[in-house]
Amino acid sequence: MRDVAVIGVGLQKWGERWDRSLRDLYCEAAQNAIDDAGVDHIDSMYIGCMSSGLFAAQEHLASLMADYLGVTPCPATRVESACASGGLAMRLGWMEIASGVSDIVLVGGVEKMTDVNGDEATFALATAADTEWEGYQGVTFPALYAMMARAHMEKYGTTIEQLSHVSVKNHANGALNPDAQYPFPVTLETVMNSTMVSDPLRLLHCSPITDGGAAVILVPAELARTKYKKRPLVTVIGSGHATDTLALHSRADFTTIKATEVAAQRAYKMAGIGPKEIDFAEVHDCFAIAEIMVTEALGFFEKGNGGPAAERGETALTGSKPINTSGGLKSKGHPVGATGVAQIIEVSRQLWGEAGKRQLKNPRRGLTQNMGGSGGSTLIHILERKD
Amino acid sequence: MRDVAVIGVGLQKWGERWDRSLRDLYCEAAQNAIDDAGVDHIDSMYIGCMSSGLFAAQEHLASLMADYLGVTPCPATRVESACASGGLAMRLGWMEIASGVSDIVLVGGVEKMTDVNGDEATFALATAADTEWEGYQGVTFPALYAMMARAHMEKYGTTIEQLSHVSVKNHANGALNPDAQYPFPVTLETVMNSTMVSDPLRLLHCSPITDGGAAVILVPAELARTKYKKRPLVTVIGSGHATDTLALHSRADFTTIKATEVAAQRAYKMAGIGPKEIDFAEVHDCFAIAEIMVTEALGFFEKGNGGPAAERGETALTGSKPINTSGGLKSKGHPVGATGVAQIIEVSRQLWGEAGKRQLKNPRRGLTQNMGGSGGSTLIHILERKD
Repeated sequence: MRDVAVIGVGLQKWGERWDRSLRDLYCEAAQNAIDDAGVDHIDSMYIGCMSSGLFAAQEHLASLMADYLGVTPCPATRVESACASGGLAMRLGWMEIASGVSDIVLVGGVEKMTDVNGDEATFALATAADTEWEGYQGVTFPALYAMMARAHMEKYGTTIEQLSHVSVKNHANGALNPDAQYPFPVTLETVMNSTMVSDPLRLLHCSPITDGGAAVILVPAELARTKYKKRPLVTVIGSGHATDTLALHSRADFTTIKATEVAAQRAYKMAGIGPKEIDFAEVHDCFAIAEIMVTEALGFFEKGNGGPAAERGETALTGSKPINTSGGLKSKGHPVGATGVAQIIEVSRQLWGEAGKRQLKNPRRGLTQNMGGSGGSTLIHILERKD
Repeated sequence: MRDVAVIGVGLQKWGERWDRSLRDLYCEAAQNAIDDAGVDHIDSMYIGCMSSGLFAAQEHLASLMADYLGVTPCPATRVESACASGGLAMRLGWMEIASGVSDIVLVGGVEKMTDVNGDEATFALATAADTEWEGYQGVTFPALYAMMARAHMEKYGTTIEQLSHVSVKNHANGALNPDAQYPFPVTLETVMNSTMVSDPLRLLHCSPITDGGAAVILVPAELARTKYKKRPLVTVIGSGHATDTLALHSRADFTTIKATEVAAQRAYKMAGIGPKEIDFAEVHDCFAIAEIMVTEALGFFEKGNGGPAAERGETALTGSKPINTSGGLKSKGHPVGATGVAQIIEVSRQLWGEAGKRQLKNPRRGLTQNMGGSGGSTLIHILERKD
């Protein structure tokens, strides 16, 4: 199998984009990535999108986007794994190049979530849970993660202050990211006093509804070293994909995200490294408790130490293991299908030294963790700067 | 890249399956394929499904199915390309094994279409067209294909009798297929006098709404020759994927399905053969006109000769180029996400000599053509019996 490199990225300002349709959001990000990479064609494209059907009454999404991007008859594939759809698109793009089937692959993600009302958006998002056993009983995602938070607090003594520190840190990072939906800092007090959503989770412990697209261009490392040489070489050294039960009630333990643990083991094994060798990570902080549980599942901190680590500032830009330098889902926004691809963009920018005011000092390896539902799926990628 | 073989298949009786849920349909087909292949685990799974969101309020589909099949944390990927979703799942499964990433891959497709009412089903299906330019203007698929039929009749003199012969032939084949939704013959007179749907297309020129699942097990050819030796070796010698504009109005010519022409060229090139070397094919007869246009796009007949060839019986079981020996979408049914996988099953069974009363005499190469929307995407696979 061939080594695969990221050579270009494209994004736009995320938020309530009344001025952009579903196809605009995707095509803008995709064209930005194509221009950034300097490629004159693409061999294949993958799009991660959770539910263009329920959010925009549009399926057959990849062909539509190939059409509007002007690249037909290029093969175009839409993949779906709820909020992990973008990470899944990344994995398949990586596989297509690694296998030798294609040389230049456009990997993108998109979600247009604000063209439906709040009830409809909540319903659409709830289809990432087990509809028959959870959705139809009235369970929504804030409630599922609230149960996970309660269990974690009970078992490990995780506090509401620790959860709140995650939000404060992610907003501090997002304030340095001009593409973020909410690019401003918040205080611990503001988070702790925000509206209750599902006890113990308050509004500022929850990621928002967002319109946005994201795209990257992948090529074989050999082409990145030669024809498309423009930046330091950044390659995919690990890819892991795992599933777990969709319904939370089927799990032995609410405080562990098993799909993330397994996907991480697979990605670490492929890369031949462990969590200590990872300099920073973009993780799926759909709710503050998720970031804490995920940093534990990735092996960055011992079980029960994710909360204290966040409180001590270990996951801040200046900490030992910076997490969500982009602002994460909380501040940057969470257009579900695009999120996993935007994580790849942030890690690439950090490794290239192009992360602006939030740039880390000479990082070498970054990890992305993108998660569907309450942890029913996880996609992990590890990127490394080679020169 | 490694050669890939089909070693097991699973299906069930298709139709209005009030006794089966979405997850039942998929898991039944998947378990049948696993049992048929005799594998004791799978490394990865792909599911083609067009719109479990609109038909069943369920996304995150592949993880749900991994959960209900009892194979978590197995990587599970859902792909969508409207009615070509099953063919797309096949292509990715092939790629994953060809690349060396996995050895045993479960490729499946499913759609549960009868749990919504007729208006809702028509709406859901219309999302395979360009929603903003076609769907919201009231255009549905019978209307789109009726326009293509009118153009073909005008340009090439194709007749309503010729269209009707396609339906008669497919029902004759389907009558020999116990899994078919409508396993009975129809006469030319019955077809010609059936209810008008969208002039010139009558009810018996249109494929039905169907509940169904389908699955196959793929392994490297080397494993099929040794550990899983049970049947004649059947491998994938060609795979082609192409897109076209989603909206019919954007095309230069309504009488040509360009995505099928391009995908066929790609598959033929990979296989190193042409249409003359194909013994039989399963094609996407969502409407009778589609089968005629597709047999032309595949190079089986000259442009304008698809209709006369059907009328002369060249595409019948006993003809020179049997098409849709399974009964096709018309008689077998069309659970959209499962259709492309069921095509692989029929071709495999014919090549293995296991097609029962509809068995062809010693066929060596079969082709599958699975199409999304009005031709916005096409997936083609060519399978060959090696011994």
